[in-house]
Amino acid sequence: MDTTSADTVSAPIPFAVLGLGRMGRLYAETLRDRVPAARLIAAADPDPAARAAFAVEHPGVDLFADPVDALDGVDAVVIATPTRTHHPLVIAAAGAGRAIFCEKPLALTVDDTRAAIDAVDAARVPLQVGFMRRFDAAYVRAKALIDAGSIGEPIVFESVGRDPFCPRPEYADPVQSGGLIVDMAIHDFDLARWLMGREVERVSAEGALLVCDDLRAVGDIDNASINLRFTGGALGHVEVSRNAFYGYDIRSEVLGTEGALTIGQHQQTPVVLLDRQGAHHDVVPYLMERFGDAYRAQLDAFVTCLRDGSTPRVTGEDGLAALAIAVASTRSQRAGGQPMTVADVLSDTSDD
Amino acid sequence: MDTTSADTVSAPIPFAVLGLGRMGRLYAETLRDRVPAARLIAAADPDPAARAAFAVEHPGVDLFADPVDALDGVDAVVIATPTRTHHPLVIAAAGAGRAIFCEKPLALTVDDTRAAIDAVDAARVPLQVGFMRRFDAAYVRAKALIDAGSIGEPIVFESVGRDPFCPRPEYADPVQSGGLIVDMAIHDFDLARWLMGREVERVSAEGALLVCDDLRAVGDIDNASINLRFTGGALGHVEVSRNAFYGYDIRSEVLGTEGALTIGQHQQTPVVLLDRQGAHHDVVPYLMERFGDAYRAQLDAFVTCLRDGSTPRVTGEDGLAALAIAVASTRSQRAGGQPMTVADVLSDTSDD
Amino acid sequence: MDTTSADTVSAPIPFAVLGLGRMGRLYAETLRDRVPAARLIAAADPDPAARAAFAVEHPGVDLFADPVDALDGVDAVVIATPTRTHHPLVIAAAGAGRAIFCEKPLALTVDDTRAAIDAVDAARVPLQVGFMRRFDAAYVRAKALIDAGSIGEPIVFESVGRDPFCPRPEYADPVQSGGLIVDMAIHDFDLARWLMGREVERVSAEGALLVCDDLRAVGDIDNASINLRFTGGALGHVEVSRNAFYGYDIRSEVLGTEGALTIGQHQQTPVVLLDRQGAHHDVVPYLMERFGDAYRAQLDAFVTCLRDGSTPRVTGEDGLAALAIAVASTRSQRAGGQPMTVADVLSDTSDD
Amino acid sequence: MDTTSADTVSAPIPFAVLGLGRMGRLYAETLRDRVPAARLIAAADPDPAARAAFAVEHPGVDLFADPVDALDGVDAVVIATPTRTHHPLVIAAAGAGRAIFCEKPLALTVDDTRAAIDAVDAARVPLQVGFMRRFDAAYVRAKALIDAGSIGEPIVFESVGRDPFCPRPEYADPVQSGGLIVDMAIHDFDLARWLMGREVERVSAEGALLVCDDLRAVGDIDNASINLRFTGGALGHVEVSRNAFYGYDIRSEVLGTEGALTIGQHQQTPVVLLDRQGAHHDVVPYLMERFGDAYRAQLDAFVTCLRDGSTPRVTGEDGLAALAIAVASTRSQRAGGQPMTVADVLSDTSDD
Repeated sequence: MDTTSADTVSAPIPFAVLGLGRMGRLYAETLRDRVPAARLIAAADPDPAARAAFAVEHPGVDLFADPVDALDGVDAVVIATPTRTHHPLVIAAAGAGRAIFCEKPLALTVDDTRAAIDAVDAARVPLQVGFMRRFDAAYVRAKALIDAGSIGEPIVFESVGRDPFCPRPEYADPVQSGGLIVDMAIHDFDLARWLMGREVERVSAEGALLVCDDLRAVGDIDNASINLRFTGGALGHVEVSRNAFYGYDIRSEVLGTEGALTIGQHQQTPVVLLDRQGAHHDVVPYLMERFGDAYRAQLDAFVTCLRDGSTPRVTGEDGLAALAIAVASTRSQRAGGQPMTVADVLSDTSDD
Repeated sequence: MDTTSADTVSAPIPFAVLGLGRMGRLYAETLRDRVPAARLIAAADPDPAARAAFAVEHPGVDLFADPVDALDGVDAVVIATPTRTHHPLVIAAAGAGRAIFCEKPLALTVDDTRAAIDAVDAARVPLQVGFMRRFDAAYVRAKALIDAGSIGEPIVFESVGRDPFCPRPEYADPVQSGGLIVDMAIHDFDLARWLMGREVERVSAEGALLVCDDLRAVGDIDNASINLRFTGGALGHVEVSRNAFYGYDIRSEVLGTEGALTIGQHQQTPVVLLDRQGAHHDVVPYLMERFGDAYRAQLDAFVTCLRDGSTPRVTGEDGLAALAIAVASTRSQRAGGQPMTVADVLSDTSDD
Repeated sequence: MDTTSADTVSAPIPFAVLGLGRMGRLYAETLRDRVPAARLIAAADPDPAARAAFAVEHPGVDLFADPVDALDGVDAVVIATPTRTHHPLVIAAAGAGRAIFCEKPLALTVDDTRAAIDAVDAARVPLQVGFMRRFDAAYVRAKALIDAGSIGEPIVFESVGRDPFCPRPEYADPVQSGGLIVDMAIHDFDLARWLMGREVERVSAEGALLVCDDLRAVGDIDNASINLRFTGGALGHVEVSRNAFYGYDIRSEVLGTEGALTIGQHQQTPVVLLDRQGAHHDVVPYLMERFGDAYRAQLDAFVTCLRDGSTPRVTGEDGLAALAIAVASTRSQRAGGQPMTVADVLSDTSDD
Repeated sequence: MDTTSADTVSAPIPFAVLGLGRMGRLYAETLRDRVPAARLIAAADPDPAARAAFAVEHPGVDLFADPVDALDGVDAVVIATPTRTHHPLVIAAAGAGRAIFCEKPLALTVDDTRAAIDAVDAARVPLQVGFMRRFDAAYVRAKALIDAGSIGEPIVFESVGRDPFCPRPEYADPVQSGGLIVDMAIHDFDLARWLMGREVERVSAEGALLVCDDLRAVGDIDNASINLRFTGGALGHVEVSRNAFYGYDIRSEVLGTEGALTIGQHQQTPVVLLDRQGAHHDVVPYLMERFGDAYRAQLDAFVTCLRDGSTPRVTGEDGLAALAIAVASTRSQRAGGQPMTVADVLSDTSDD
């Protein structure tokens, strides 16, 4: 019998997950099952019921009510708490010297985002923001084709992001989430910058509450249409919706000077039923069916950065830039579609 | 031997085609080959070379330099002259009592459009505007599905319209064509009103000259991104481009409260080549491959109206409404994306 | 006013259509509306009701009970009578010196097919057999790609041909139609020879009556699966069915040494409905929606041959070769799948 | 701090993987990374280099030269050795009382397969055969739709299975693998039985060596086309190829009395590039990209059976039935396409 030892293989990196809502549980599960180089050893949530349920699924993980307590003894944290609490936890984790993976956005305002980035910079810890789409096979391929010159110079960006159900008002409340545009379109804004290789200069947005009546109480909208103007005159557009009851509909396009790319499709399972009523197939149901592999890949990439000391592919500055576009768009939408510049948002210390 | 007589069949309606450019020749060919109930007997173009070439293809058709001369002896005219001359010819044809099919747009300004409509109303002649997409099998099916309630209430409209080559500057010159948005997006604006069953209230537009450098001399742009706000808060967006060198790319979507529709596809011929580089298929090359049948169907429908006295499906008011959206969008684009209301355009007698 | 004369344009070629069933009416309509270089002046059908109905649609066309009478005064005939009468009419038309377009197959036996070809050869008149798929844009493109070497050497052929409804027993009766394989798969056999550039040497077939119970009375099957072996060892397969109630399903594939081609698709109209049950689109309903343009193109090509003296692209020998494969396959099916060689069928003068 | 214990969670089941070729390594990796309820503790391969490489990837796993030695101390084995050694190892593992997951086929002959099944039955251990396609999301959905009556009664089965490269002759050698049809089409035969809900009664097959010249030395073919006749007259067809250099092409269809299903597609990544040459997308490259999740799901299902005592979904009898079809098809191919009955194969004790 041959025997092998593990000496040459690095020990897994100990992680804590902060926040055990939907995203926190997703990150925990991904770390446990699909990122062998990480080991989930701690988790935190103020809700005892959430902790109890988590304990059943993740035996052996230490659980805390206060997320700051979970920072002890880990090398890295995943911050998946409610959005408003992201930046204080980034600052706390940086202060404790932990590597930080933070769900988008880092904060709801430019000032708070900058404070988080400053803390990270001061502590010289790695920070990655959770724009998982950059790790999706389709978007990765599109980026590679653009970089290879397949469509010439990219000049028009289009993106559609639609969720399959109305959110709970407590979640969607703009005070908690930043509102529809910050919560959803921020992913498209990050893609816009990344795929176009340009910054957004000016935006104008229309929005309305059309379907999800429960959101009226918290003052949010459920649909928005946002025009983008990039440096150099390139154009873009993002449409987001809470009410695509047929499925999770994420698609983007880039038109270049020599060609174009379309990214995303409706069909999930490659089966088509043909009957007297026509042809029928299913539709991507929701987030994990579409981006489950991307969630794994972004954590893998983060862990790789921790191991080899490289800089995460999605930085705090990326998080700030996408937030600023979202804040400008939200202001434009509230101002009846008046164009807003991103520079104004970045220089305005009183941003909402 | 049985013999049959033609008594019970109506004689074909005599038509003149005014203007023998690309569209005029297309209408002439469609009338000759594919609309048995019409007979092309006259055509007009000031260019002798155009007339000579036409004579070879259409022997037996009387040809005139002055389009007004071609009105004699016909029951109906197709106006396919340069855009700026549409409204005076509509007025002349109405004055002569002819039924009028006019390529879009009726005119480049709201005032001129109204003058054309007034002349038609006074003469009580039929008028149909050339929004052929309403007669395309795919758009017809989409409209029927919406009317049947398949997607609930329509709340978001999206449309992309891309031409596969830069136009000649003389053609694209905004003085002649109204500029990119009037020339191209007017089709999408008509679809927007028709499919959504709502009027557009407010628009804002970004645009730029990014590829077709020859257009700089005439002051036009080649790409535009236009946000729409409909009555009741419904949203929309139209993107147009002159530089989709891969093909003629016309697609629309409607999101409703219960579902969505996508209209249009890239593939023309149902053949896929699989080789070591992947899968490959062709793309719709241009206008007639995509809308050839729709051009025929709209003329068929027009001839049916002439026969049975019904009102054309696309009226002068439809032409005015789409133009007003296009004028408002053009103004917004020139004003750095400032939102403009369609009502302001309709009430402003000094519209550009 | 310019005037043009028609001197330089050839007069249309006078045609007769023999047989006013579904295919005959289709050919007549195509000749009238879509082949300007032809003029339909005569038609024949023994059924007075068929003639009367035709007269309403085609005023001015001379009608005859006996197809032979319709040969007078025309230059060319389209034979679209019941299959069993094809070859005597080919012989009669050849004897009268008429150019002949004959619906597939030329006859139900090898001997009768040869007799027809011999008569055509003796009379030195043009003959084209109605394998319209060779004129379909998709199959034309596939053939061009193969000829250009895009897939290397073609080595495997696959074809599916499914009709959307059970035929009337009188029509399907093998005595009249040759049975399922002769009636339907003959199109696929012609494609096989044309796309592969090889002859079929050996076949074996399984078949059954599974759905269309009315066919039991006439002894036909409704589904068949046929293996082909080409010269050089290349392989093929054809599946035909009478009961694809979801639509008209015609697809083929060619696998080569360097790649593959797929031809055909289910979707007719480029509209997709997305709702809580998934995604839905339509399916090609039937023959004319799929091959209407090919029917026009094959008549156009035939007329071009008549004008310029070139040989039709689908010859009598092509008709014989496809029939021989069909006869061999039918024999194999009736013999429990025993392999049959095409050579045996061609050398056997007693073929059914 | 809350602490949780693992008492209520079952300990992972200890597994050995026998054979560390491509499939063995795949199973080992899947067990380690994606089946939390299993724990890989032992592996065997006679090749020291294979063991050494494996040790690097799987530290802590005990390694053996002789697979029988790896049976000690585990509850379950995955047999992924060369095909000829499957059945003696099944018998050995059954004798040791281990639960058995065996790659397809169980053996190369009916007799050897029966001997393996008999040993399993005598030992009353669970046995699952590796027809992973039954666990693929697309095939699972198709089966569910058939069972729900969506296509009526299934009557025609079609399947295409194409590998993207010629195999090494040592692997393809019929003495080792059973030859092309046993090695590849056995998956399609299993699908045929499962999806149609019927047994195959009769087959006939054509085959040839057309591309992979290296296989001439071992006497194998690289392409085959196989006709199937099911109980009740239902029909089927399977095409397999070694030389689909464009990708891994696995597709099936089922035609029913009321509709049809298509399963499988060429595209892997939902990105389409549009350029002046047309539209381009990628193709499924190979096995794991298409069936990686199915490999995980079949092991998950096997482990679930071990835990709850249920019978595996793919039994030894399923393995025998598919093998018998493959043996009959191989005989038919070697006999020039003569039809063979599966019953004859099952009753013939001298089958190879």
